[in-house]
Amino acid sequence: MGSNTLGLAILGSTGSVGSQTLDVARSLPGRFRIVALAAGQNVTLLEEQAREFRPRFIWCDREGEDLLSRLRQQGYRCDWATLEEMAAHPDVDIVVVATVGGTGLVPTLAAVKAGKTVAIVNKEVLVMAGHIVTAEANQYGAQLRPVDSEHSAIWQCLWGEDPRSIERIILTASGGPFRDTPYEELALVSAEEALRHPNWQMGRKITVDSATLLNKGLECIEAHWLFGVPLERIEVVLHRESIVHSLVEFRDGSVKAQLGVPDMRLPIQCALTYPERPPGASIGRLDLRRAGPLTFGEIDMKRFPCLSLALEAGRSGGTYPSVLAAADEVAVQHFLAGHIGFVDIPHLIEEALTRHQGISDPNLEEVLAADAWARSWAEDWVKAKI
Amino acid sequence: MGSNTLGLAILGSTGSVGSQTLDVARSLPGRFRIVALAAGQNVTLLEEQAREFRPRFIWCDREGEDLLSRLRQQGYRCDWATLEEMAAHPDVDIVVVATVGGTGLVPTLAAVKAGKTVAIVNKEVLVMAGHIVTAEANQYGAQLRPVDSEHSAIWQCLWGEDPRSIERIILTASGGPFRDTPYEELALVSAEEALRHPNWQMGRKITVDSATLLNKGLECIEAHWLFGVPLERIEVVLHRESIVHSLVEFRDGSVKAQLGVPDMRLPIQCALTYPERPPGASIGRLDLRRAGPLTFGEIDMKRFPCLSLALEAGRSGGTYPSVLAAADEVAVQHFLAGHIGFVDIPHLIEEALTRHQGISDPNLEEVLAADAWARSWAEDWVKAKI
Repeated sequence: MGSNTLGLAILGSTGSVGSQTLDVARSLPGRFRIVALAAGQNVTLLEEQAREFRPRFIWCDREGEDLLSRLRQQGYRCDWATLEEMAAHPDVDIVVVATVGGTGLVPTLAAVKAGKTVAIVNKEVLVMAGHIVTAEANQYGAQLRPVDSEHSAIWQCLWGEDPRSIERIILTASGGPFRDTPYEELALVSAEEALRHPNWQMGRKITVDSATLLNKGLECIEAHWLFGVPLERIEVVLHRESIVHSLVEFRDGSVKAQLGVPDMRLPIQCALTYPERPPGASIGRLDLRRAGPLTFGEIDMKRFPCLSLALEAGRSGGTYPSVLAAADEVAVQHFLAGHIGFVDIPHLIEEALTRHQGISDPNLEEVLAADAWARSWAEDWVKAKI
Repeated sequence: MGSNTLGLAILGSTGSVGSQTLDVARSLPGRFRIVALAAGQNVTLLEEQAREFRPRFIWCDREGEDLLSRLRQQGYRCDWATLEEMAAHPDVDIVVVATVGGTGLVPTLAAVKAGKTVAIVNKEVLVMAGHIVTAEANQYGAQLRPVDSEHSAIWQCLWGEDPRSIERIILTASGGPFRDTPYEELALVSAEEALRHPNWQMGRKITVDSATLLNKGLECIEAHWLFGVPLERIEVVLHRESIVHSLVEFRDGSVKAQLGVPDMRLPIQCALTYPERPPGASIGRLDLRRAGPLTFGEIDMKRFPCLSLALEAGRSGGTYPSVLAAADEVAVQHFLAGHIGFVDIPHLIEEALTRHQGISDPNLEEVLAADAWARSWAEDWVKAKI
């Protein structure tokens, strides 16, 4: 706990990226101290993490008092804190927002207002309220750092560059498990099949979003807010190998790309250690000669209507992206539970967007109200369907 | 001729890169003024360039007085100056060293001592005297900027990065016209065949050097001096498409690459306009979807002994790289003239390196003496052969 270590609050520490954030901290001893850990339902893993990393604060969605008293009985000094309290605590330097869905938004704003560095994993935060988060980050001098592999790639390509030099951002997409599945067969695919991503090990929700390509649409909106580039100049290109994580084209015609093995620990580490690049003990090295040919192709927008819907919601702006994200969250939950089919996901989202009465330049309350409306509307849609 | 335009001295203005440097200046009106132009034998083109760009100083290797009096009679204000005078002139901000072979060295040192920004096209400058040029650049605050597409790529990937973060530099090589020619057939290839580069339009000397891959070896040595990375951490990878111009691997496992259509005007413009990236009117845009798969493979070192020889000379250091470069220059000249065969080029170089009594940490005189010795020795070798 040296004075020049960085204090981390990890919101969503038991998820895929949260756990890998702790891997990174473990592989760089002496660099970080874990000040706060917040989890949802996985109390067992949170308890393990708390024993190993001895955070000052914890939070979880259930059995919190039991956990806290267990830890204290064993001599751990540990307090309860809300996500907002963690995000704004003076001992915290970097807040990792790795929660799922809309829950990351309020703590992110708390972190931003406290001038923290915020490592953004949860893309809904910027999809829902990019206009608010970026404006407040500017005002309070908070730094937003991407953790998504695509956005980390773009960010790394922009180090030392003038943002005004950007001509285009090119996001790569593996195409997910159904990149070669004929349109007619998509109606019948199972949750199990949707969860078989060809290149990445991720959480369940984002894996399904990668199968519908809605995730890529959210990424376009996120890139728009992170890098200040209009959606018209953000492109998606099919890149099956997931080696080139994304590219930036500059006004002079030069293109920069970031490459690496598909391992989330690399972008996580980048967000935590910037501008340094310490050797990542556990991160594999890319051998280009063995990586095989790198291919780039067109996305078939007809097979992946969720991508068009996301881009449309992004262009409409206001509360539409919140409705998109919330409707998708509900749809994916019910798809995973076997209540609706794969192609119902875009149907649900499309109808939610059509029914929604958009508000432009919404404040936080209006954003959260749109989110709540979309969730309840989507639940009703599913109930009617079942 | 506004006061915030940058003054350019182009040494080697009638060569391939020299002419394209003027293309770049032409495409960015108001940004540069051409202060000085120096050429070798191509008096006709130099005269055209002088009429269009009205340099204050010119120099050429023959018919200089005739040219000067012709220009003056037509009302052009133009003076004679040596390359060193041009390189150090107060009106000059950037010196483009695009001469062939060893002739660029002394003017480069003059530019460096005058604290100029030096755009280095002529790789022999750093191959011969990298230790002197980089030390003096440090001392006099001169900036060295690469123009070679590979080195420009590496440079662009390093903007905003700490050089200590570099793990490896990966230079791409198209493999040249003989990348698929069996070893047995290389003895019989003609100058005409060697001049047919698959991807790049360049000068004759460098095109032959690309066919032997000696050029790639010189590039490794150049990269070593430009970026302060030991040769052991500089790799060459076969990349037939010449789209990825080179890559940098960082200590954390992240890899950055610079891509673009094969057009020298892009790296030239980068070196002239850094850190800005103005739209390059005439530079083509890379369409990844049409660029086809990007492949990466191993170089067959047995078929390209010049590459091993260059790396060996680079590792030996001292005066060996000068001998390598000078022996190669003579060998290529005689190969182009039909006096010796393609496989004689590595034979000549290898014998020159073996015969040479190396001096470590040589001063400029010792470098130039090694250069002169190698040239004369190589001429004798060729005479004995013919």
